[in-house]
Amino acid sequence: MQFASDNWAGASAKVMDALSRHNDGAAPAYGGDDLTQQIETRFQDIFETDCSVFMVATGTAANALSLSTLTGPGGTVFCHMDAHIRVDECGAPEFLTSGARMWGLEGRHGKLTPDAIRHGLEQVPHGIVHHGQPNAISLSQATEYGTAYSLRELEALATIAKDQKLALHMDGARFANAMLAIGATPAEMTWKSGVDVLSFGATKNGAWCAEAVVFFNKDYASDFIYRRKRAGHLFSKMRFAAAQFDGYFADDHWLDNATHANKMANRLIDGLKASNSSRIAWPSQSNEVFAILPKTAAEQAREAGGNFHEWPSAGLPDEDCPGEGECLVRLVCSFRTQPDEVDAFLAAINKSEAPHKIG
Amino acid sequence: MQFASDNWAGASAKVMDALSRHNDGAAPAYGGDDLTQQIETRFQDIFETDCSVFMVATGTAANALSLSTLTGPGGTVFCHMDAHIRVDECGAPEFLTSGARMWGLEGRHGKLTPDAIRHGLEQVPHGIVHHGQPNAISLSQATEYGTAYSLRELEALATIAKDQKLALHMDGARFANAMLAIGATPAEMTWKSGVDVLSFGATKNGAWCAEAVVFFNKDYASDFIYRRKRAGHLFSKMRFAAAQFDGYFADDHWLDNATHANKMANRLIDGLKASNSSRIAWPSQSNEVFAILPKTAAEQAREAGGNFHEWPSAGLPDEDCPGEGECLVRLVCSFRTQPDEVDAFLAAINKSEAPHKIG
Amino acid sequence: MQFASDNWAGASAKVMDALSRHNDGAAPAYGGDDLTQQIETRFQDIFETDCSVFMVATGTAANALSLSTLTGPGGTVFCHMDAHIRVDECGAPEFLTSGARMWGLEGRHGKLTPDAIRHGLEQVPHGIVHHGQPNAISLSQATEYGTAYSLRELEALATIAKDQKLALHMDGARFANAMLAIGATPAEMTWKSGVDVLSFGATKNGAWCAEAVVFFNKDYASDFIYRRKRAGHLFSKMRFAAAQFDGYFADDHWLDNATHANKMANRLIDGLKASNSSRIAWPSQSNEVFAILPKTAAEQAREAGGNFHEWPSAGLPDEDCPGEGECLVRLVCSFRTQPDEVDAFLAAINKSEAPHKIG
Amino acid sequence: MQFASDNWAGASAKVMDALSRHNDGAAPAYGGDDLTQQIETRFQDIFETDCSVFMVATGTAANALSLSTLTGPGGTVFCHMDAHIRVDECGAPEFLTSGARMWGLEGRHGKLTPDAIRHGLEQVPHGIVHHGQPNAISLSQATEYGTAYSLRELEALATIAKDQKLALHMDGARFANAMLAIGATPAEMTWKSGVDVLSFGATKNGAWCAEAVVFFNKDYASDFIYRRKRAGHLFSKMRFAAAQFDGYFADDHWLDNATHANKMANRLIDGLKASNSSRIAWPSQSNEVFAILPKTAAEQAREAGGNFHEWPSAGLPDEDCPGEGECLVRLVCSFRTQPDEVDAFLAAINKSEAPHKIG
Repeated sequence: MQFASDNWAGASAKVMDALSRHNDGAAPAYGGDDLTQQIETRFQDIFETDCSVFMVATGTAANALSLSTLTGPGGTVFCHMDAHIRVDECGAPEFLTSGARMWGLEGRHGKLTPDAIRHGLEQVPHGIVHHGQPNAISLSQATEYGTAYSLRELEALATIAKDQKLALHMDGARFANAMLAIGATPAEMTWKSGVDVLSFGATKNGAWCAEAVVFFNKDYASDFIYRRKRAGHLFSKMRFAAAQFDGYFADDHWLDNATHANKMANRLIDGLKASNSSRIAWPSQSNEVFAILPKTAAEQAREAGGNFHEWPSAGLPDEDCPGEGECLVRLVCSFRTQPDEVDAFLAAINKSEAPHKIG
Repeated sequence: MQFASDNWAGASAKVMDALSRHNDGAAPAYGGDDLTQQIETRFQDIFETDCSVFMVATGTAANALSLSTLTGPGGTVFCHMDAHIRVDECGAPEFLTSGARMWGLEGRHGKLTPDAIRHGLEQVPHGIVHHGQPNAISLSQATEYGTAYSLRELEALATIAKDQKLALHMDGARFANAMLAIGATPAEMTWKSGVDVLSFGATKNGAWCAEAVVFFNKDYASDFIYRRKRAGHLFSKMRFAAAQFDGYFADDHWLDNATHANKMANRLIDGLKASNSSRIAWPSQSNEVFAILPKTAAEQAREAGGNFHEWPSAGLPDEDCPGEGECLVRLVCSFRTQPDEVDAFLAAINKSEAPHKIG
Repeated sequence: MQFASDNWAGASAKVMDALSRHNDGAAPAYGGDDLTQQIETRFQDIFETDCSVFMVATGTAANALSLSTLTGPGGTVFCHMDAHIRVDECGAPEFLTSGARMWGLEGRHGKLTPDAIRHGLEQVPHGIVHHGQPNAISLSQATEYGTAYSLRELEALATIAKDQKLALHMDGARFANAMLAIGATPAEMTWKSGVDVLSFGATKNGAWCAEAVVFFNKDYASDFIYRRKRAGHLFSKMRFAAAQFDGYFADDHWLDNATHANKMANRLIDGLKASNSSRIAWPSQSNEVFAILPKTAAEQAREAGGNFHEWPSAGLPDEDCPGEGECLVRLVCSFRTQPDEVDAFLAAINKSEAPHKIG
Repeated sequence: MQFASDNWAGASAKVMDALSRHNDGAAPAYGGDDLTQQIETRFQDIFETDCSVFMVATGTAANALSLSTLTGPGGTVFCHMDAHIRVDECGAPEFLTSGARMWGLEGRHGKLTPDAIRHGLEQVPHGIVHHGQPNAISLSQATEYGTAYSLRELEALATIAKDQKLALHMDGARFANAMLAIGATPAEMTWKSGVDVLSFGATKNGAWCAEAVVFFNKDYASDFIYRRKRAGHLFSKMRFAAAQFDGYFADDHWLDNATHANKMANRLIDGLKASNSSRIAWPSQSNEVFAILPKTAAEQAREAGGNFHEWPSAGLPDEDCPGEGECLVRLVCSFRTQPDEVDAFLAAINKSEAPHKIG
């Protein structure tokens, strides 16, 4: 009953196999090997465009280094108040961009809107030196609330980004889950929707430590090799990162993993909807579910071996908040989540519901 | 005939096995797992002291983040002119320390001496605001010239470091090779010799991407968790780094690997000493050999499949430089180097020597 | 009718005189001169304590360099949403602290409260690496809303700062105005109230470019000389900064200037209170007045030669916002503001009020 | 007998007069005033080209901020071993460029040569990620040795800069002195010789704190307003910096000041050449003289009230070094140096020479 994080799973068997397969023999270091080149080509095939691809160790590195290419002195990145880059990366974006500000904006269920961006531009407008310069929009797909932007929502953000000369960055730590949730292709969800740079995450979906910065707008990539190395993020034995992606992409393994995780999340959602005492906090997509449980139910789940995080509700609108005696929890499914884990969790939280329900 | 770099080998079978072994089940992310704790204890056992240990992805990260704990505003690190931190890390130490200078000093065969440090302190003395502040000494063990400091040499540097209130950092990208070369224990070569912080490298000696920052002086470690995360170097699935170290340390695997690499280097040295036309450039220890070959011999080696880098000789004293028609090359052995690779290389470079040698 | 900014005035005659007086003869550079030492002593006398004092060119430098001594990696400074350091310094605090975040908190009329700090600590708590570390509180005295913290309010913030191991920084760009407004001594308003570091501004109150970082807690000052120089803020001819402070402090000139500016602000407030059509937006103290005027009145003031900035009301509570046909404006008085300027402004905005008012 | 530094003098009377003249009335802050615009035009007239001009407080800020526009991640600036930016600015260039390295190169009497640059490019070549990227050449005119590049020497550097796609920066802390020494116009010594960006210093030559960054290649200036503000270097009362330049440029005051200082330096040189016991260390131009004196002579000069710095000779070729019983001293003349100060100094150092010299 592991719902704490999709980072708690190890790597999938197929990723491990690829790692073993590519371990033999000598290969040039620092990305000069053939496999690294093949992975770039693989990305180009998957995204149906001539993108530039750089592998790094962590999602935080992917995000912060991406943003460093998009921001200038006094730079500002518009993002959601609760965006990972703003609250969960220990200031890495600020540090690796040499001081750009992650400007938090309001938005229901983790999503930015053109109105929010317009509001941000009132606070950090173009051309006023004191306020710094507005440089980019960063959105998370899937969001930190488990929701996913529709193509229409992405395009609306891309439109204001283009109008306002803001670069558009996507934090795709859960890219595959979002993509499957909205039924789009990789190309549609990125460059066709106006995304300039993507942090493409594989770690949460089956790899050990495989993240990639993908530049659809190659202008931003011109000095990225130096940025990556300067931050200590150029692997010497790069092929081991490439090997993970090789296993990840082969035979649609990445899609299978994300499909499974999303399915488990939906199983959870269905169970919560059927519960008399618990409920979903808001309709999430992807592999993250936010639920409101009676505190006693949460306790029962923990006693039954359930592992999950209680989630802060400060700042949420009233209708998303737990009531008296309730708590808000986050439940994350991964490629390793089993249906019986989900069912056991549901059984545990519903344990004290009256038996007449069944009758 | 791979002598290009010890980074060209993949991971050793034992490291891969450990990775597979620790892949099962769920484990807390970001280093909260048991295995990560066990690895810290393992380091404490090996180094016979209560050190703090932080795993990171690359040697450059280990070095630059280490130095960030030792330097202040306007800070200066005294190092060898050819130190990796000064010439091979794309300014990562300068960047991740927010501008400390890597102050290059002269020294025979890659080694710093107390005299060199004194010279550095004339240029960057204590207490003159214009010159910045002298903060640390960083030495590489083994050095970039394949040599290794003796314990006596280390202690001499530690003495001046202590006298001058300079922290002492060791870049141990090839720690095991140096340790075996000088016949010291891990403790003797580090904290017993006055080292405050060590970049401990496992990658070149059999791991995929396993480096650790080891603080013997724990005062410097107080905010390291934030430094690591702020630079994007906190692995979410930390156990995969820990697993590499688990395989690396088990049954003295790391010592076996380094013993083998050093032995192969000595086989090369013996062969070069026996050659009429080629020679060692200087007496190296560890697993790196610098050789002066006739250009024709280098060409023959390449034709026979030899892979190695020509090395710049600018700045070297005359006696270490290649003569007319000669070139300086670096030959690196690893845990994967085979005796017959060495012999084939030696045969190739000696091919055009007169047959009467044999008779 | 200059109410645009207290930065629009030049230097006061007494400051200019001091500059001339100290211009003769040779004096050691970079602060080694006697006058610089005397100014430090003068600060110690005024603040009745053994503080450390460092002069810099701008308020932004004073703030950002101060905060750089208080923050560590992943560091966070709690401040008001509209604090100068957060919105008006082009990311200088983020840049010069190497990435600390200025964490905006809500607060009526520009003031932080213990509750706001507690809210901040929920978002950036101690000990969670992802969120970074909470390091300091920064408050502006006077605030960006023209209000001033009472001693009781300062002490409440100091108490939570101490409890939570947060350093306390005061942005005193309008220090003298605030001090006179609340009737406190320099000591009472700073270290006696728990302030660790003060950005002491003289520029807005009669100097050319004279700001000082004053450390009451000298632990934070240990490497400040390097921080100042490393940011290019060490004047070579330091005596010219010292001379400004000499003129500023002599014969209570600084207090006279601020008393005058505050008095002119009060004259404005009185006039606004007497107006039928215009009003103060909220009760400010110090030398800044925020007023709500009919747009026609603002237009009349401009036509009459009035110079002032319209102020954004986004984010303000309804009762502080202009209504239909009104606008919010900021009116800043300085040591140079003349009573007849104030009266002319008031006359201009009231011009279209019906004459029967008088009768 | 003040020869310690040209920073020990205050401001010239004409600069002070200008400051007073422009002190009246209100003027927009932050450079929005008319005078600031006029100064930019004045620079354009003087340099006979459409350059962009930004005033800052210190030479270190001018240099470091200039270089921040010329360097990228992992960036490298080629400069002389003893360049001010490398040894005298407390790491400000490294800090404000976010980690670029000031790469010290050898060169006689403080001058870079194309050969030195070529040597630098061997160490930091284009396109090797580990070594970072070569971005710029920075030269000091006049140099730290009191010498000045001829136009021919400048053009040779500009040629290699252009060939190698390196930007060319000039540290003109003593710009006027150098210009007069080589008999060139401002235009000839800068953009006509291939200089992209100039740090133009007025402080040492009669101003209080007036330095300007002058972009001849305006591409580099595109975000400079943000860089300046982000480093805390945007003066609120900008007109006081502009006023200094107004006085500085009026009626060729700056040329008069520098002509005088150079003349005093030549008077020193002539005296040293006539001495039997003392001598110039090397032929300097500009207003700095390096002399080798018997230690007894230096002592006599000090006793007579002479103020000057002994200079380190480590690293100098033998012929430039003091012999047994001698010392190397730096003697700096300024606009305030008086002929009788020079003569008194010369008399003091020659005091113990035998009287028959006169006869």
